[in-house]
Amino acid sequence: MKLEIEPAANPALEQQVRRQLDNLTKPPGSLGRLEELVVQYALARGNARPPLGRKRIYVFCADHGVAAEGVSAYPAAVTAQMVRNFAGGGAAINVLCRQFGIETRIVDMGVNAVFEPELGVVNCKTGCGTGNFTRAAAMSAAQARQAIEAGIALAREAAAESCDLLGAGEMGIGNTTAAAALAAALTGRDPGEMAGLGTGITAAQLERKAEVIRRALALHRLETSRPLEALAAVGGFEIAGMAGLMLGAAAARLPVVVDGFISSAAALVAARLNERVLPYLFFSHCSAERGHRALLGELGAQPLLSLDLRLGEGTGAALAMAMIEAAARLSEQMATFDSAGVAGPVR
Amino acid sequence: MKLEIEPAANPALEQQVRRQLDNLTKPPGSLGRLEELVVQYALARGNARPPLGRKRIYVFCADHGVAAEGVSAYPAAVTAQMVRNFAGGGAAINVLCRQFGIETRIVDMGVNAVFEPELGVVNCKTGCGTGNFTRAAAMSAAQARQAIEAGIALAREAAAESCDLLGAGEMGIGNTTAAAALAAALTGRDPGEMAGLGTGITAAQLERKAEVIRRALALHRLETSRPLEALAAVGGFEIAGMAGLMLGAAAARLPVVVDGFISSAAALVAARLNERVLPYLFFSHCSAERGHRALLGELGAQPLLSLDLRLGEGTGAALAMAMIEAAARLSEQMATFDSAGVAGPVR
Repeated sequence: MKLEIEPAANPALEQQVRRQLDNLTKPPGSLGRLEELVVQYALARGNARPPLGRKRIYVFCADHGVAAEGVSAYPAAVTAQMVRNFAGGGAAINVLCRQFGIETRIVDMGVNAVFEPELGVVNCKTGCGTGNFTRAAAMSAAQARQAIEAGIALAREAAAESCDLLGAGEMGIGNTTAAAALAAALTGRDPGEMAGLGTGITAAQLERKAEVIRRALALHRLETSRPLEALAAVGGFEIAGMAGLMLGAAAARLPVVVDGFISSAAALVAARLNERVLPYLFFSHCSAERGHRALLGELGAQPLLSLDLRLGEGTGAALAMAMIEAAARLSEQMATFDSAGVAGPVR
Repeated sequence: MKLEIEPAANPALEQQVRRQLDNLTKPPGSLGRLEELVVQYALARGNARPPLGRKRIYVFCADHGVAAEGVSAYPAAVTAQMVRNFAGGGAAINVLCRQFGIETRIVDMGVNAVFEPELGVVNCKTGCGTGNFTRAAAMSAAQARQAIEAGIALAREAAAESCDLLGAGEMGIGNTTAAAALAAALTGRDPGEMAGLGTGITAAQLERKAEVIRRALALHRLETSRPLEALAAVGGFEIAGMAGLMLGAAAARLPVVVDGFISSAAALVAARLNERVLPYLFFSHCSAERGHRALLGELGAQPLLSLDLRLGEGTGAALAMAMIEAAARLSEQMATFDSAGVAGPVR
């Protein structure tokens, strides 16, 4: 897991990109956040005019032992059923990826089911679901490392296949509980602040969910400064895979679009392992899940969209990718004041 | 200008659309604002499964006599230069429309220049720029009516050509001043609250801009309840054209995506002429222009995006159209719980 991530900051390159933007036929800065996307993308790629062609979203899937504690509105079997739905192209993320020309890869990080090879699911299985972390660690330290390495390997492969922009989404019944536990463990915040309604639980279930996390944190006695231990104790295979993808992509100067609450928890793990990963991450949206805003705050992230999404799968990442691609096309294709014969500002 | 707009509200249809959404493989409501877009679009079209194919943005262009008061960062000649840039495909709106499969129509509502027919600019010229409204009315009552009628005619043509979704953008040096004056006149708010930095003026120019509007309002003594008079006194040809497009489209049950501050001022005029227009309007974004949030509040609008855009042209409308189309595709293409064999919530 020795990874070199180059610092993305480069004042000379940034100045060059901003100068290019100011030459386009629009008042300086008038494309707002879209201009910041252009700058961030260029700095991540280390190129003033980086191509943005191949886009790919990975949907990391896994089961969670903590689902047995009644923390989800849906039965655990839905994880495997949704993997089949992804493979069949019928889920929300499939529709959005088709709409915006994004490739989709479904990754089995640890679903409690075996998928036929013809489904095309990428096999990175690290277990058949995690253990129930209210009683023991969710996974071993070796499994945590293996799951992260799997994500890193996917990022390397994507770089070798000339991908330009990746996205990290997920599916796993029980995984908002794992993400909330991990976020609470790594930030020291109260579990009640991080636990949310997930797929739509009742107020009584929400109370139980926060209590389940409190019990787990009391059991494992985690330290905020030890991300790998927290990941093994209360995390999930898909969260580890996403963290690995982010780290591996950053090492290859390939930016990753972070999706919602669970994807952001993976970003927190990645950032605690190597804070240089952060400028390589685009935070797509602030979801309706209770802890997401606080988690984004901990990451210093300014999400692009705020659409009350709470589905996961990478759906917010797909929408944000469309915005990032639009920003890239503007910087590539707009006329300059000179080329279009448009006058500049009055002095 | 006798227009019948049908009420969009239809509780039975709305219930049907929400039931369809709840059958899709996702927790109920988990697509957040995207689900509300599906409902609004269906109600506007009066159809539980409306097609969304042909999308078109009109860029209404006109000059403004008030530009002589030094209220803009750019010379008035830029309006005509930008029309040529639009016609050549080099402006921001052209790039975004290409990216998202949206047709672009450039409309000369009253630019102080004549364009060769081969440029393909739609000729709805109602004057060669408005009068300086600090001295006299911007246009006559007959011109205001003519410009609105031109917008209505464009909407009728779009409906006849089977467009499904329209957008209203604009370009015109000086038009944030006209829009701010109109918004102040029709809401009774202080011009200082509505005047903003536009294309990027200095603090001193901003002070002058608010003062120019105050002088105009003192001269014309407008009433908040008389939108046509306010439009003629301090409006603009492109603002009138956009208001007409919105009214004509609503009468044809064709929704319109509103762009930024100036497009929203046109929506205010349209809503004051016939409040039934409102459910046919999608408010795309809250811009960085100072008065926009207050103006959206007056319209009871909840903008979809907040990206600090302040360019106009319909750029925010193009981005929002991509979101609306994505929402439509989700509702059309996602599998249902039954079809995908996915279990519903635990009872």
